[in-house]
Amino acid sequence: MEVKSVKAFGAEGATAPLRQLTINRRITTPHDVEIDILFCGVCHSDLHTARNEWHNAVYPVVPGHEIVGRISRVGSHVTKFKVGDLAAVGCIVDSCRECEYCKEGLEQFCEPGFTGTYNDPDKHLPPAQTYGGYSESVVVDENYVLRVPGNLDLAATAPLLCAGITTYSPLRHWNAGPGKNVGVVGIGGLGHMAIKLAKAMGAHVVVFTTSESKFADAKRLGADEVVLSKDPEQMKKFTGKLHLIIDAVSAEHDINAYLRLLKVQGALALVGAPEFPLPVHAFSVIMGRKSFAGSPIGSIKETQEMLDFCAEHNITSDIELIKIDQINEAYERLLKGDVRYRFVIDMASLKNTN
Amino acid sequence: MEVKSVKAFGAEGATAPLRQLTINRRITTPHDVEIDILFCGVCHSDLHTARNEWHNAVYPVVPGHEIVGRISRVGSHVTKFKVGDLAAVGCIVDSCRECEYCKEGLEQFCEPGFTGTYNDPDKHLPPAQTYGGYSESVVVDENYVLRVPGNLDLAATAPLLCAGITTYSPLRHWNAGPGKNVGVVGIGGLGHMAIKLAKAMGAHVVVFTTSESKFADAKRLGADEVVLSKDPEQMKKFTGKLHLIIDAVSAEHDINAYLRLLKVQGALALVGAPEFPLPVHAFSVIMGRKSFAGSPIGSIKETQEMLDFCAEHNITSDIELIKIDQINEAYERLLKGDVRYRFVIDMASLKNTN
Repeated sequence: MEVKSVKAFGAEGATAPLRQLTINRRITTPHDVEIDILFCGVCHSDLHTARNEWHNAVYPVVPGHEIVGRISRVGSHVTKFKVGDLAAVGCIVDSCRECEYCKEGLEQFCEPGFTGTYNDPDKHLPPAQTYGGYSESVVVDENYVLRVPGNLDLAATAPLLCAGITTYSPLRHWNAGPGKNVGVVGIGGLGHMAIKLAKAMGAHVVVFTTSESKFADAKRLGADEVVLSKDPEQMKKFTGKLHLIIDAVSAEHDINAYLRLLKVQGALALVGAPEFPLPVHAFSVIMGRKSFAGSPIGSIKETQEMLDFCAEHNITSDIELIKIDQINEAYERLLKGDVRYRFVIDMASLKNTN
Repeated sequence: MEVKSVKAFGAEGATAPLRQLTINRRITTPHDVEIDILFCGVCHSDLHTARNEWHNAVYPVVPGHEIVGRISRVGSHVTKFKVGDLAAVGCIVDSCRECEYCKEGLEQFCEPGFTGTYNDPDKHLPPAQTYGGYSESVVVDENYVLRVPGNLDLAATAPLLCAGITTYSPLRHWNAGPGKNVGVVGIGGLGHMAIKLAKAMGAHVVVFTTSESKFADAKRLGADEVVLSKDPEQMKKFTGKLHLIIDAVSAEHDINAYLRLLKVQGALALVGAPEFPLPVHAFSVIMGRKSFAGSPIGSIKETQEMLDFCAEHNITSDIELIKIDQINEAYERLLKGDVRYRFVIDMASLKNTN
């Protein structure tokens, strides 16, 4: 298979800082598009994978699955894009297309497993892994590429591809909307998107935070009410009041305290992934027939729907734009929660490095 | 308020064996019926309450919420029953009738809390508690009394009022039926009903047990397949295969091993209540958007629907009929799981004691 060398930024080991690398990209096959990457968001998964914290890294790891760019080349059979179009790529670059879930258009649940945008076997260039968006360009089958609405800030659009869809999908699945009280736990990359999206869907949004310093920001993002989660009196006011809770906290926390706030038949959807199992009391779910649930990203179709929804409601992520050579420092700040609310890499900075 | 003394069997303390007592029943008010109790099932909750294991017992405790009997008296405004009719009472004898859940006909979720058949404040005879079915008769508002189909064995019908509805309700809620694979974990009072009901609903029923000695019985009850849950190879065969799991195990067990067996967007409904919190891995629910849920009893309307469904499909509980003076021994056997699958007290035996 024909390949082309492109500049990228990645890790060559669990303890190695990210640095400039050269990787191969395939030349577009008939159904592929090549995207010149303009911006790439920085997801906590990038850090987990670069540092092999999920014990599945194959080096070099080139992270990045919140990609926004412009089409620079199209395969002969491509119908959805032309050179010069804006385009985006999220967490999925391929799937089996044959299992019951792929056939239903739910590639995120692909039975043999979808092909992740990075650190998954690359069926086009074996034995290489897929390389993500911390690079000059990427080549992806057009069926896994999203259209980018023209009215949104492009850098601030990048995080919609993971943080956006990961919160949009459960909000839709559990019917957030007018007349519904939606709790959001944790105001970070995911949580701040959940607040904006739930509010735009018409829900009454109640935000839970451990820090009073985030109250004003929660309101600015769209919260109707803000609750200091460590104050039992404030928590008690919401007992049995919430239809849905989006829980975006990755640290250990008391799930039973939040299940108590759900209305009968309500659901708590975990989108953050705490490392250790969460102890759930039987009566926390039995009484009121409640669900402790989770939700991962979303399908290609739903990701497009989310981007269009964001365009209509003028929603993007709150970001801090960085240059590629600031990525190692950004990871350190990410670990301290020191970002409001998502780092995005200006990929022009990679082109300009030697 | 006018009262009448009736014989009952109950506990006067957490460590006291159950023995004969005399309790007061109110004389029927205009909307009440009096039921001459013929049979009363023995639920594990009876034992928990009699021994104050839930730390809420008010003595004397007269347990029993699986009541089948015959109407012996009706209040002046009663329209649904006449003297001589068969009737049944389950776990609920009253509720607020005003909250959003009562108005929706979901009394099991009554906001201020429904009035339990035993060990709840009796609003008619304060400061007494309600007394359950281990007694000669009971007086209940007709709106909380069920009609008993004539074609079922009456003794074997009693356990439907708790074990039956507790498994019927989640099976209906999560749409068990043709084309659905329903797992049942644990073959006891609840589990054996879940198998019969799921099978009658047309589901493909997969039963999980820790003991090969229960394989034949599981098949007899209606299992299409039986899995030895401690054999990882047998478990693996069902990875991602089940639409719904009814988990009727009250002992500690690995919930993540069962969540793994659910299909995408499947639910595990806990109906057993393990004493200690169950550790749930974030990825067990995030991947596949699965739900770890629970379900308590059912509404009055759904309980009637369940009884009618059982009449249509000729379903009752597998029981061991005992006399009231065998109740303490039955509790000991219950603790050892030594019953196939529900004790039912022949209440004629109480009338005949002195």
